[in-house]
Amino acid sequence: MAKTRKQPRPKAETPKGFRDYFGAEVTERAEMLQKIAGVYHRYGFDALESSAVETVEALGKFLPDTDRPNEGVFAWQEEDEHGKGDWLALRYDLTAPLARVYAQHRNDLPTPYRRYAMGPVWRNEKPGPGRYRQFYQCDADTVGSARMAADAEMCAMLAEVLEEVGIPRGDYIVRVNNRKVLNGVLESMGLAEEEERSAAVMRTIDKFDKVGEEGVRQLLTTGRKDASGAFIEGVGLSPDQAEPVLAFLTSKAADAAGTLDNLRAAVGESAIGGEGVRELEEIAALLAAQGYGPDRVEIDPSVVRGLGYYTGPVFEAELTFEIHDDKGRKRQFGSVAGGGRYDDLVKRFTGQAVPATGVSVGVDRLLAALHAKGRIGGTVEGPVVVTVMDRDSMADYQEMVGELRDAGIRAEVYLGNPKNFGNQLKYADRRGAPAAVIQGADEKEKGVVQIKDLVLGAQIAESATLEEWKERPSQVEVPRGRLLETVREILGVRT
Amino acid sequence: MAKTRKQPRPKAETPKGFRDYFGAEVTERAEMLQKIAGVYHRYGFDALESSAVETVEALGKFLPDTDRPNEGVFAWQEEDEHGKGDWLALRYDLTAPLARVYAQHRNDLPTPYRRYAMGPVWRNEKPGPGRYRQFYQCDADTVGSARMAADAEMCAMLAEVLEEVGIPRGDYIVRVNNRKVLNGVLESMGLAEEEERSAAVMRTIDKFDKVGEEGVRQLLTTGRKDASGAFIEGVGLSPDQAEPVLAFLTSKAADAAGTLDNLRAAVGESAIGGEGVRELEEIAALLAAQGYGPDRVEIDPSVVRGLGYYTGPVFEAELTFEIHDDKGRKRQFGSVAGGGRYDDLVKRFTGQAVPATGVSVGVDRLLAALHAKGRIGGTVEGPVVVTVMDRDSMADYQEMVGELRDAGIRAEVYLGNPKNFGNQLKYADRRGAPAAVIQGADEKEKGVVQIKDLVLGAQIAESATLEEWKERPSQVEVPRGRLLETVREILGVRT
Repeated sequence: MAKTRKQPRPKAETPKGFRDYFGAEVTERAEMLQKIAGVYHRYGFDALESSAVETVEALGKFLPDTDRPNEGVFAWQEEDEHGKGDWLALRYDLTAPLARVYAQHRNDLPTPYRRYAMGPVWRNEKPGPGRYRQFYQCDADTVGSARMAADAEMCAMLAEVLEEVGIPRGDYIVRVNNRKVLNGVLESMGLAEEEERSAAVMRTIDKFDKVGEEGVRQLLTTGRKDASGAFIEGVGLSPDQAEPVLAFLTSKAADAAGTLDNLRAAVGESAIGGEGVRELEEIAALLAAQGYGPDRVEIDPSVVRGLGYYTGPVFEAELTFEIHDDKGRKRQFGSVAGGGRYDDLVKRFTGQAVPATGVSVGVDRLLAALHAKGRIGGTVEGPVVVTVMDRDSMADYQEMVGELRDAGIRAEVYLGNPKNFGNQLKYADRRGAPAAVIQGADEKEKGVVQIKDLVLGAQIAESATLEEWKERPSQVEVPRGRLLETVREILGVRT
Repeated sequence: MAKTRKQPRPKAETPKGFRDYFGAEVTERAEMLQKIAGVYHRYGFDALESSAVETVEALGKFLPDTDRPNEGVFAWQEEDEHGKGDWLALRYDLTAPLARVYAQHRNDLPTPYRRYAMGPVWRNEKPGPGRYRQFYQCDADTVGSARMAADAEMCAMLAEVLEEVGIPRGDYIVRVNNRKVLNGVLESMGLAEEEERSAAVMRTIDKFDKVGEEGVRQLLTTGRKDASGAFIEGVGLSPDQAEPVLAFLTSKAADAAGTLDNLRAAVGESAIGGEGVRELEEIAALLAAQGYGPDRVEIDPSVVRGLGYYTGPVFEAELTFEIHDDKGRKRQFGSVAGGGRYDDLVKRFTGQAVPATGVSVGVDRLLAALHAKGRIGGTVEGPVVVTVMDRDSMADYQEMVGELRDAGIRAEVYLGNPKNFGNQLKYADRRGAPAAVIQGADEKEKGVVQIKDLVLGAQIAESATLEEWKERPSQVEVPRGRLLETVREILGVRT
């Protein structure tokens, strides 16, 4: 006889690399998104929300981490009536969908089209500590403008966004570079046509912050042993070939003019490189004229940005303060936003060049930074809890919360099993309730309610003298008609 | 020789059944979500945001439309290091993820756990007109309470939510039923153990609104020809067997007491049916005591709700006003929210019974209803546009917008090609700009700016007499120092 197999219980777990957000975590993010959207709106950007799902074809392949399955995205194939349909995927950023939206609706949109968008994006990456496969971005982009003023505006706006969400001046820096300068350097090295080696050089440049000048020199040539002793293979350039890259990387000077001079030297005769330097020059001039000095925005040749679609200026906002990591070690917080110009992304669809530039704020990283600095991380104040002394009086209790809610006060009747009164007060405590309301049969007959000030009660329990305890009793009995007034007083005391 | 195939251009299209939302569509939804969350918060619910992606195992199979591929969800299989990993899917609602969250975190959560959540959900359904595969829900649930007070609260809160977002009393009705009553009817028919036929009866009941009593009788027995002439097969009950279902369906009386009497008769001796009627009785009594009469909440036996996980009371909020459909025909708007009690959803994970009840608002349908009634559908006011007369003065123009933005005024410099000045004014018009600022070389020398009131200009162009035109010129020249003040005046005129 076949044994009946019991269906195993499903595991109560998020998929690997995903997590849940509770209470203040959710509302703090919502507030931050609203603040950022407020800045974008003030700068003239309009809201856009595209769907989370796009065709793989429309998204294109621009993620840096392409050695992973599915090229870094979550993708699946549609099953249509005829069998197999389009490949669909979750968006990995908000820029690729924007290019699709603009190409699709361009006849109905103003030019330039300035839009902001916010929402989760998904990356099919190896999850790690603090590294999730779903995270929020909040972007602003100007499509249809080739002008450096659009890029300069992105840098200025990024600075304003950071200050708006609570990162004071001095705690961040917006760094600007230009892909054309990088390409100019590659050209002057004779690598412009070698896609793979160019990409390898770009990735190496991106490690400058971590491994320094000598590390980059080793990685560009014969390779390098990292801290763990593992050997990282080099790109295989000759020491001579590596020099222009190093000259470029170390071209940051005391001021923008000095950096620009060094960059001009680094790109040599390269036309594209020269154009890149001129663009940086224009951006620097516009920003200086608007009062954005090197304390807020600076030219930094080590900025690369991982995404493959950038064609000109690239930006990165970095927090400059130190935090302590999980192991208590001090470290720099690093990048919280970035962006750049991507003149060819719309062209993929239409065949016509449509210049575009934009910026993306990594909202979850920014929240983590504010948490690490102790600037956010509060809790949401709980509801006033009306306890249940008598199951048959539920309608009375509901009336009480109704009265409180109508006055805009957060309130609820205890809906668990009312048998154990201690559990009700524990619940109120667990919820961070500011007050509990109690009415048993005796109180009902007398037409009164007991109101317990839970915050004061906790304070008194902790530290009050007997006199204080007598003077400010944490529980009062008032006529039923004075419930609202009394709760208001209790809440008011602390505001 | 092999011919080089040109890569075809990607199509600039959303996947079938998805769409983009622009400007006011986005901000109106955000405002509605905020209003609903505000009500939920006031009722004592805490925010929760789980990820869009869950394991298929955790989500379970509860969608009604199970004859579709992938059982109605968008799903794919993970590729891990060892080849194939878990099946993942986009959530199809916010309730199944909540059950997973509660089971996973139950030791850290208060009991009852009252949470609200909002966000998109995805259904792999056949798209149709106005029917999208991504849409927003905004839910509130109480997990860990078996009490009917929790269900009654859901109905009351649903009424409050609808009024809060702009559906006045009289334009909606919250209808309540109980799955136990339905099960009691099935039991009294001897169908309780026959899962398939029970489900077929449920689906038939759900069509009562559309086909009426006689239609349901036909569908329960031998079948029915629909309006198009197509024959819909019947469930195959005998006329006698069908009677209790019809008695149940037509048991709605003039008041709750009458309906409850009829339901009691319909469930006969069934214990579960009797329990269902008693639960409805308790809900009705609680709601009546709180002032929610049959003008807002009523018992309606025809409410079924499609999802498979409901075990007790079920709710549905319906808009009762008529709108005109795409073809100009009048029709009822129908259901915009629903929910119910699902006592076994957490048990799937833990093996322990955890009672739960909740409500889900279909935000996109609600927005569509408000649009159809003309109650929303405005446009977002555009930015003040500072035009570009002289490319070399970009820094000046940026300074002007900076000044306006600092004062909280939405503003931007024109970032398109400035060559054709007409295009700049067309752009300002296209953006709904309230004003345009103009400063050419002459104005700059004189230290003045021209400010064009675009709204007034449009009004004058349309209807003003010559006198009015002279009296209220739509364009003024002011000293540069009075830019902000003048723009403020122009904006102020209309507020």
